[in-house]
Amino acid sequence: MGKMLKKLISYDKAKEMVFNEWNKFLKDKFKIIPLLDALGRVSYEDIMSPIDLPMFDRAAMDGYAVRAEDTFGASTTNPLILNLVEKKEINEGECLKVFTGSKMPKNADAVVMKEYCKEEDGFVEIYKGVHPYENVSRIGEDVRKGDLLLKKGEAISPHHISILSSVGIKEVKVYNVNVGIISTGDELVDLEEVISMEELKNNSKIVNSNSLMLYALVKESGLNPKIYGKVVDDRERIKSLIKKAIIENDIVITTGGTSVGDRDYIIEVVNELGGIVLHGVQIRPGKPFGFGKINNKLIFTLSGYPVASTVQFELFIRSYFKKRKKIKLPLRRNIASELGRTDIVRIKIEDFEVEPLRITGSGVISSLTKADGYVIIPENVEGYEKGEYVEVYLF
Amino acid sequence: MGKMLKKLISYDKAKEMVFNEWNKFLKDKFKIIPLLDALGRVSYEDIMSPIDLPMFDRAAMDGYAVRAEDTFGASTTNPLILNLVEKKEINEGECLKVFTGSKMPKNADAVVMKEYCKEEDGFVEIYKGVHPYENVSRIGEDVRKGDLLLKKGEAISPHHISILSSVGIKEVKVYNVNVGIISTGDELVDLEEVISMEELKNNSKIVNSNSLMLYALVKESGLNPKIYGKVVDDRERIKSLIKKAIIENDIVITTGGTSVGDRDYIIEVVNELGGIVLHGVQIRPGKPFGFGKINNKLIFTLSGYPVASTVQFELFIRSYFKKRKKIKLPLRRNIASELGRTDIVRIKIEDFEVEPLRITGSGVISSLTKADGYVIIPENVEGYEKGEYVEVYLF
Repeated sequence: MGKMLKKLISYDKAKEMVFNEWNKFLKDKFKIIPLLDALGRVSYEDIMSPIDLPMFDRAAMDGYAVRAEDTFGASTTNPLILNLVEKKEINEGECLKVFTGSKMPKNADAVVMKEYCKEEDGFVEIYKGVHPYENVSRIGEDVRKGDLLLKKGEAISPHHISILSSVGIKEVKVYNVNVGIISTGDELVDLEEVISMEELKNNSKIVNSNSLMLYALVKESGLNPKIYGKVVDDRERIKSLIKKAIIENDIVITTGGTSVGDRDYIIEVVNELGGIVLHGVQIRPGKPFGFGKINNKLIFTLSGYPVASTVQFELFIRSYFKKRKKIKLPLRRNIASELGRTDIVRIKIEDFEVEPLRITGSGVISSLTKADGYVIIPENVEGYEKGEYVEVYLF
Repeated sequence: MGKMLKKLISYDKAKEMVFNEWNKFLKDKFKIIPLLDALGRVSYEDIMSPIDLPMFDRAAMDGYAVRAEDTFGASTTNPLILNLVEKKEINEGECLKVFTGSKMPKNADAVVMKEYCKEEDGFVEIYKGVHPYENVSRIGEDVRKGDLLLKKGEAISPHHISILSSVGIKEVKVYNVNVGIISTGDELVDLEEVISMEELKNNSKIVNSNSLMLYALVKESGLNPKIYGKVVDDRERIKSLIKKAIIENDIVITTGGTSVGDRDYIIEVVNELGGIVLHGVQIRPGKPFGFGKINNKLIFTLSGYPVASTVQFELFIRSYFKKRKKIKLPLRRNIASELGRTDIVRIKIEDFEVEPLRITGSGVISSLTKADGYVIIPENVEGYEKGEYVEVYLF
């Protein structure tokens, strides 16, 4: 009988091995970029606030800055009168005109909204009392000096960009990993070379969709993809393309040829060029996943099936850089699994319940565009029952 | 007393008015781009599959293509023998060697995995029977001709890119909207001009963070941002910058100066250049939101406070282009609102419950980086109680 994957490693063990290598490997893989370009990149370091924000007490409304005690008891029927001054401090019985965002004058501790004031020549009638710090944004109210604004490993959002620029940070250190992408398979035709699908069909070919998909997945993970196109199932050609891609990048991702068929050369080639660290993981889909090292660079050998390669990418690459949000929702029907195997089940959220997507093989791509996320069934669990609350990783 | 926002419009009404204008405005605002550049853009049209996928029955495993009926009853103790042929069809008693992805030969309807076969010279021993279509990916199993692969208004994911390339689609039509971004306020300093935060503090200035934040928000929405920097609260300067930005872009977004203070010129300027469609919405935060038209282009006047402007952007721009995922989770504590007003409450998901973020003013930026999403409390609801299930829009 044919060759088989020898000893499958558990998902937990495989994850630990790969993530340990990531930790070591990424030590010097950063780049400093302008904050404006940082959207979607992953922070290489913790960033603390260098200052309090606001930096000074600010008026939160248009109106008049006052000493709150000078306004106590003021009302429409019993207005109080304050002298209008124009200086950087006020004294008892005085007020200063301010706009939203203005720095508060010295001694002032509140703002009376202009809707409750009437300005006359040199004085202001106050129709409503204010308590101390009413309508004032106080020093440090938004952010305290030393507050953690962005965590190492966190994806940078528009909100991070807002707060980092507010405290005067102009550049950020982000992970900078160049990723070479190679697809293998005699049956593949690169998209730009497709003349008609009819022609592909007649020649029993399919589009090399994995290169484009991985390009997008890598980009979405905050890393830098480069496509090397497809290579046929020929040991020497695969070897020379991997060599080239490894030299030109930090890591390489391949798809296809990672099983143990007669034409599955990838694992042997990685072993010749460097060394396979692991091959074959107790997961479904994605079992033939391989991971190795060549010249201190990393190589991930993924399946040719898009769904399997997506899952492998998700578990061993994306989830290192960008954590998914997790929620807990009830299952709409049973899902079965096998003891000893970790299952990754695509799901849809329907009426706020988890609907596992019925799919047959790992090749059913359309299940991915329909999925809202996935559920991981650990190896020591035989499945989940209808109504049970399960953790969902959200796309 | 001072001017006030006259008549506030309800959130539902405002949304309807703005979205109607978007619908009309976007009629010709598209661009055709290569599929590889489409990640994160928003599709301008429905895309149906032009073909069945797979285009032909394919082997789903390495092994031997057979007529299933020829293998019935085969087992380790009772192997059956088939003649090994090398042609595009097989007949009774024959088999053909295939690899994962190979086109199935004519008359074959199943694959016996090679692990259950032993190849000898000219024939193959079969150790396991297969049923019809076992280990075969059938025509149209992934996608049927005419299936909807991508919806108009849907954000393009790596999975869409995978499936679209698989069916041979090389380019996609996406929304193409150029967005000019202007911040107004005497107190603002553009980030690149900041020498030290100490200097800003001494001059009672703050960083123009809104331009950078909006740049990122616009980009994340699949649109094309362009920053015009800050302009002081001077009616003529604001007017000439808006004029320039309107000419050079499809829409303009401003921040600041949209209230009714003495220095709030934006609304008047929009009215002079074109017309304000609405100003003042019953939402919190974000009440002073304004929306207008100049030369058949759209202008959105947002608040100066980052949290308020983020919410306004979310409700009236982002949510038109990219729908948030919605889930339902129980509240960890009461949230109060006011009848007649729509509240947008930032929340965190903790232990799979919804924790409303305690924040004081609309200026508390840090609440945004901590938030996992938000809850909308409609105008006819006074609030929600602890334990109640609420709809969460996920960031």
